[in-house]
Amino acid sequence: MHVHELAENTYRLFAALRDTRPLVHVVTNFVVMNQTANVLLALGASPMMSWAEDDAAYMSGVSDALCINTGTPVADRISVMKSLMSLAGDVEKPVVLDPVGAGAGPFRTDIARELCTLAPAKIIRGNPSEICALAADHLSTKGVDSGISPEQARAILTGHGRPDRNADDLPSGATALLESASALVVSGNTDMVLGQGKMVKIANGSQLMGAVTGTGCMLSAICAAFYAVAENGFDAAIASVAVTGIAGELAASRVTGPGFFLPHFIDSLYALREADIHQYLRAEVHSL
Amino acid sequence: MHVHELAENTYRLFAALRDTRPLVHVVTNFVVMNQTANVLLALGASPMMSWAEDDAAYMSGVSDALCINTGTPVADRISVMKSLMSLAGDVEKPVVLDPVGAGAGPFRTDIARELCTLAPAKIIRGNPSEICALAADHLSTKGVDSGISPEQARAILTGHGRPDRNADDLPSGATALLESASALVVSGNTDMVLGQGKMVKIANGSQLMGAVTGTGCMLSAICAAFYAVAENGFDAAIASVAVTGIAGELAASRVTGPGFFLPHFIDSLYALREADIHQYLRAEVHSL
Amino acid sequence: MHVHELAENTYRLFAALRDTRPLVHVVTNFVVMNQTANVLLALGASPMMSWAEDDAAYMSGVSDALCINTGTPVADRISVMKSLMSLAGDVEKPVVLDPVGAGAGPFRTDIARELCTLAPAKIIRGNPSEICALAADHLSTKGVDSGISPEQARAILTGHGRPDRNADDLPSGATALLESASALVVSGNTDMVLGQGKMVKIANGSQLMGAVTGTGCMLSAICAAFYAVAENGFDAAIASVAVTGIAGELAASRVTGPGFFLPHFIDSLYALREADIHQYLRAEVHSL
Repeated sequence: MHVHELAENTYRLFAALRDTRPLVHVVTNFVVMNQTANVLLALGASPMMSWAEDDAAYMSGVSDALCINTGTPVADRISVMKSLMSLAGDVEKPVVLDPVGAGAGPFRTDIARELCTLAPAKIIRGNPSEICALAADHLSTKGVDSGISPEQARAILTGHGRPDRNADDLPSGATALLESASALVVSGNTDMVLGQGKMVKIANGSQLMGAVTGTGCMLSAICAAFYAVAENGFDAAIASVAVTGIAGELAASRVTGPGFFLPHFIDSLYALREADIHQYLRAEVHSL
Repeated sequence: MHVHELAENTYRLFAALRDTRPLVHVVTNFVVMNQTANVLLALGASPMMSWAEDDAAYMSGVSDALCINTGTPVADRISVMKSLMSLAGDVEKPVVLDPVGAGAGPFRTDIARELCTLAPAKIIRGNPSEICALAADHLSTKGVDSGISPEQARAILTGHGRPDRNADDLPSGATALLESASALVVSGNTDMVLGQGKMVKIANGSQLMGAVTGTGCMLSAICAAFYAVAENGFDAAIASVAVTGIAGELAASRVTGPGFFLPHFIDSLYALREADIHQYLRAEVHSL
Repeated sequence: MHVHELAENTYRLFAALRDTRPLVHVVTNFVVMNQTANVLLALGASPMMSWAEDDAAYMSGVSDALCINTGTPVADRISVMKSLMSLAGDVEKPVVLDPVGAGAGPFRTDIARELCTLAPAKIIRGNPSEICALAADHLSTKGVDSGISPEQARAILTGHGRPDRNADDLPSGATALLESASALVVSGNTDMVLGQGKMVKIANGSQLMGAVTGTGCMLSAICAAFYAVAENGFDAAIASVAVTGIAGELAASRVTGPGFFLPHFIDSLYALREADIHQYLRAEVHSL
């Protein structure tokens, strides 16, 4: 695959998304609900943000994709997340799992592990620490958390990487994790999309996005919107990372701090043209 | 009633609102809480956003108006909504009901139906689909949802209207629904306010508001603030739709996408002058 | 203490905060979660916003400071707040308590009272009404709320002060309240920091901040971030009020209404330099 081909495919899915306006059901943390809904609207999708238990089965019947984000994991929400992922799995509805805080303590890690076993047609998106925590689980019978020091847990929670396991260690563990997913997205300075025996590195985006809350969560919701119109999770993930990175880069070029990043990001998504994708996409394709 | 008269009345209520700073109790969905509070503050009202059960009776005793929005209808919140509406009904406190997702499944429809029976001194505000779903309930013994296809439910949830029942069908069903409300507000490209045997069409606002989450929810909260200072729900609803539409139109004229709509909307509300209302209001009064 | 010395100390703590990036655990109301996380990131801290019960003990073990804000006091959150404050108290972790609505009804007042007894190493931050409500409790066996009229409760909830008890009455009651805290912050046109036998008045900030939701809540979270790197709560509180006031003043000078205050505030925090603190800080030190 050539970058030009990735760009073409990304735009094709972007146009399909705007055409079909998929209904994306997002159960996400309380910090980012508002911006997630606005980003989906700007992209051309329709958001639905409820996790009411009595609503879950009905909403699952009408939505086109599901995004589950385990931040602020209050107990009653976790059971709804499981139900929704099971229901989605039954009909092979596209799912995205954002395992916020996986690795930081047994509670979050166990939730993420359990959700990983549901809905095989899914993209898993996280920072390197979270993905490592889940990937390690596939490589070892030793509990993930037993090997995580408080210092490492802090790194997971702050999203500043784990000093002991950098992204270069990912592919081996990730290969195993890919058995329960159609694609992995590992967010970082360079984002990585893994799937179909390949690793695509996408170098768009901006350092500034680390100073804005919920940029990863937004990417996960965007992955769900693209997955609703894509043939498979791998293509959806590439398109999502490309579009998010390019819109993020354009937004960052228009601001001097994090305060105005989000409105510019939304406007960049809303106004994104085919030419922008071809001009800005920086991607490399590797074999796993 | 002439447009000039509507504009005068709108400004009179707007000035009264800024003078008295009513305390508006809003129980709304998690997606829009922040913007709802900011919009009420910019308008000159004081927001209170709690739905804590132990707080409900006390807060009901000190608030000037109540706004109930059934989005993200987690179970424990619904019972508080009912209590608050009952308490408000007991003292004829102004109430606004925003039946988010009415028609989309039995759970949400039943909640909306039940809340409709409480607190007769209320404005009901929704999109055409939601109002149709409630109005139909008044015209037929057949369950609303039994006649709603998944495709129609999607239309309700995405706010993109229902292909089978356009706004022109509204007045007949609405007349019946008006038995349990003092006014109806039906949001759309042209907003409609129904009450007192009349239908006022207000053609302010902007298409862009459909690309921003929670613009309808904000209008509902604004209706509650105006209702706190108005003689009746019909006048309050007209003033609310007028002010929201004009501020929305001014905001939309200052942006190129949805990302900056909200801050400009807030600033437009904050700075709105009497002359703006007279200059921009586009309204027509019809008999029902 | 001279203003110059306060400015130097403020910048020293500000630089330390950016260096160490403390992990600040904030359990706050649903209205302000997003902006609180963004403000902490812009300041250089790492926010964690979960109140999941199963997570609490683990998160307490890795966080550097705790901020508890009692707005939207839904029942299950209150018990987690108590656990987290107790755990923090056990290890003398820095804590900030923001007793939202203390004085407005027995439910909120009782919560605030009980939390006041936990975690002695804490800053208490509130508006004059809230602090008066808690301070009065220390001066009298009579229930606070029994002396509060509905009119006064409205003043507490709207944050517009209590006509009968202005800030000048504070010091006497506050002295008693200081027995259960390391510092008090009383927000108003002029902010006051009380502790170590002194009262520091800081006259930065802007009237506009009263038209933006959650500016007090943000200050509380900022106090927690500074407390994580300070020798004591009094120094942390002074630095927090100074930095928040100066960033707020700079932000207000760049806007014409409340709509754009928050993004400018975040950018001002993000870009704040030592020279800004020395140039803008307006403070007076008094003995209590």
